[in-house]
Amino acid sequence: MNRSASSYLYRPGTRRLILLLEGELRMAQERGYHVAVVGATGAVGQQMIKTLENRDFPISKLTLLSSARSAGKKAVYNGQEFTIEEAKPESFEGVDIALFSAGGSVSKALAPEAVKRGAICVDNTSAFRMDENVPLVVPEVNSEDLKTHNGIIANPNCSTIQMVVALEPLRKKFGLKKVIVSTYQAVSGAGAAAVDEMHEQTKAILEGKEVEANILPVGSLDKHYQIAFNAIPQIDKFEENGFTFEEMKMINETKKIMHMPGLQVAATCVRLPVGTGHSESVYFEIDADGISSNEVKTLLSDAPGVVLQDDPSEQIYPMPAFCVGKNDVFVGRIRKDLDNEQGFHMWVVSDNLLKGAAWNSVQIAETLIELGLVKK
Amino acid sequence: MNRSASSYLYRPGTRRLILLLEGELRMAQERGYHVAVVGATGAVGQQMIKTLENRDFPISKLTLLSSARSAGKKAVYNGQEFTIEEAKPESFEGVDIALFSAGGSVSKALAPEAVKRGAICVDNTSAFRMDENVPLVVPEVNSEDLKTHNGIIANPNCSTIQMVVALEPLRKKFGLKKVIVSTYQAVSGAGAAAVDEMHEQTKAILEGKEVEANILPVGSLDKHYQIAFNAIPQIDKFEENGFTFEEMKMINETKKIMHMPGLQVAATCVRLPVGTGHSESVYFEIDADGISSNEVKTLLSDAPGVVLQDDPSEQIYPMPAFCVGKNDVFVGRIRKDLDNEQGFHMWVVSDNLLKGAAWNSVQIAETLIELGLVKK
Repeated sequence: MNRSASSYLYRPGTRRLILLLEGELRMAQERGYHVAVVGATGAVGQQMIKTLENRDFPISKLTLLSSARSAGKKAVYNGQEFTIEEAKPESFEGVDIALFSAGGSVSKALAPEAVKRGAICVDNTSAFRMDENVPLVVPEVNSEDLKTHNGIIANPNCSTIQMVVALEPLRKKFGLKKVIVSTYQAVSGAGAAAVDEMHEQTKAILEGKEVEANILPVGSLDKHYQIAFNAIPQIDKFEENGFTFEEMKMINETKKIMHMPGLQVAATCVRLPVGTGHSESVYFEIDADGISSNEVKTLLSDAPGVVLQDDPSEQIYPMPAFCVGKNDVFVGRIRKDLDNEQGFHMWVVSDNLLKGAAWNSVQIAETLIELGLVKK
Repeated sequence: MNRSASSYLYRPGTRRLILLLEGELRMAQERGYHVAVVGATGAVGQQMIKTLENRDFPISKLTLLSSARSAGKKAVYNGQEFTIEEAKPESFEGVDIALFSAGGSVSKALAPEAVKRGAICVDNTSAFRMDENVPLVVPEVNSEDLKTHNGIIANPNCSTIQMVVALEPLRKKFGLKKVIVSTYQAVSGAGAAAVDEMHEQTKAILEGKEVEANILPVGSLDKHYQIAFNAIPQIDKFEENGFTFEEMKMINETKKIMHMPGLQVAATCVRLPVGTGHSESVYFEIDADGISSNEVKTLLSDAPGVVLQDDPSEQIYPMPAFCVGKNDVFVGRIRKDLDNEQGFHMWVVSDNLLKGAAWNSVQIAETLIELGLVKK
């Protein structure tokens, strides 16, 4: 969905609105949607509001919701201040599209209530991702799956999204057999408080003071480790098989999104002292011989949602510090494996709060509208 | 080589020395070696001096050398101040063991001169590593190769050393077929000035100031990028095949050290905002079926140079912030691949200045003495 001059008409809270003739206003309301953002005070929720604004999303009414704890706080959308209300079942009366990012338990409790009241929900938590009745969608990969929705669409895990955007064109053209990924994940994936803590720790170390750790790797677990000038090879809790939940999310979600239950996927997920921007070292095997790294580069240079940054002679490759605030998935360091004719390596970077969360959710909502799947 | 009470007798520059009887002094001189450290002002050189001290290395005379630029600076060994001299061919007269870490060009020019004068050289640069007449040694893996030396022994690249220490017990017991590694490398690998720059950049970012970058990824190249709160997927220059020299070092050195020219090895090397401590996400395939991750853990828990830190239920795994100052290679996050019966994943961390450089060099020197390979 591109910006158009007329879309400015539908912005609430701007002075333009009062200049509109009544008929135009009615039209604007007819074409706009009542959108709710659940978890509006969080790191992702804030990015969702900003993304709706940046995309000129057709909004006739905006409702900002949160848990009881954060209710009463303020947020700004298009210059207008909103008071954030506590999310309750009845909050969703009249809502057309609800974007959820307030934790799995909130989604589990309230997304079905929103659906009952006629809303379509895009859920950024892991609550429904592996539910076989819920499509798990990255628009560049499987927007067709939206057509089978039952009111809830799940937004995948941040680290999964950027990887499948880069892998999908390869799967389509050559077939895909195997993926081994090691991640370099940013702290904002654990929330704004974790970023604050990283900054506090960093300052303490530079000043030769004691370091305090209370959040990472997992707030609810017993042990917390310093992230400043460190790397923590744990994101989320551990499963019985020795993989973390984050690693299993990458494995299972990739198979579901790409409709490849038999795809071989392995992941090692690591948290870095980076504020925003996930990076991934991805080894993959295609199902074709004789393909050069240049063919892979050419394919990805033209792939939806991908920006190729790959010129070793000019030291051009993606880096997290330079992806922040952008919706794209940046790919570089593409090279053929030296032993396996079908093996390749690449480096994939994206803003984990945008394509990894807020932008992918808004993009799902835009695609739902384009496909005529949002009831009014 | 363990500390012993008598080794204190051989410490130069201590008051004890003058209390010795003449006969004891002669014995001390007979049993000690004239050791030279070339590159004594660098990050690794400093660690070499400290390691010689910590190990009570049998030194009868210590000569500290550097390039002309750093000559005249002071260094301290066992409480005694030394003036660092410019390294010249004649500096090596009478030297028994020379530890080189002053860059490849210094080693290329001066190691042969030292050998001519009867010294045995342990070279921490990449100058001779792939020379087929030069053994490339990690004592836990291939100390036998020392016996074929021609005066120069090469110390491998930091990221290679810690990986082969962890892989060798697996190769020995099960056979090894394939290795895919993604590294998380510390800034001190690029020298002390790079660490200072990282701290300056970090401070600037926390204070909302402009960031300056002049060193990383490669000082001599045109483009320099911020490392603070970033990850740079380039260490050393690029080769024609799209891999960096650092990646090709890991690939070629691993094959040479393990005597496995046919081993499949691939590497992606990434620099992180970590001061000291390299981490590695290693996928490997053994040549045996039916092996459990517990068997791998048991094997590594008893392997030379390895400390197993692997208990997910207690959140125990290696991290760079906690490896600093230790000689060991820490291994954790060991788990079996979910698709490949012979595949496993592990996370390997070590102090890149110690096992990755200074300690491995001193350890080679100790092993040379143990094997009776140092001429006096």
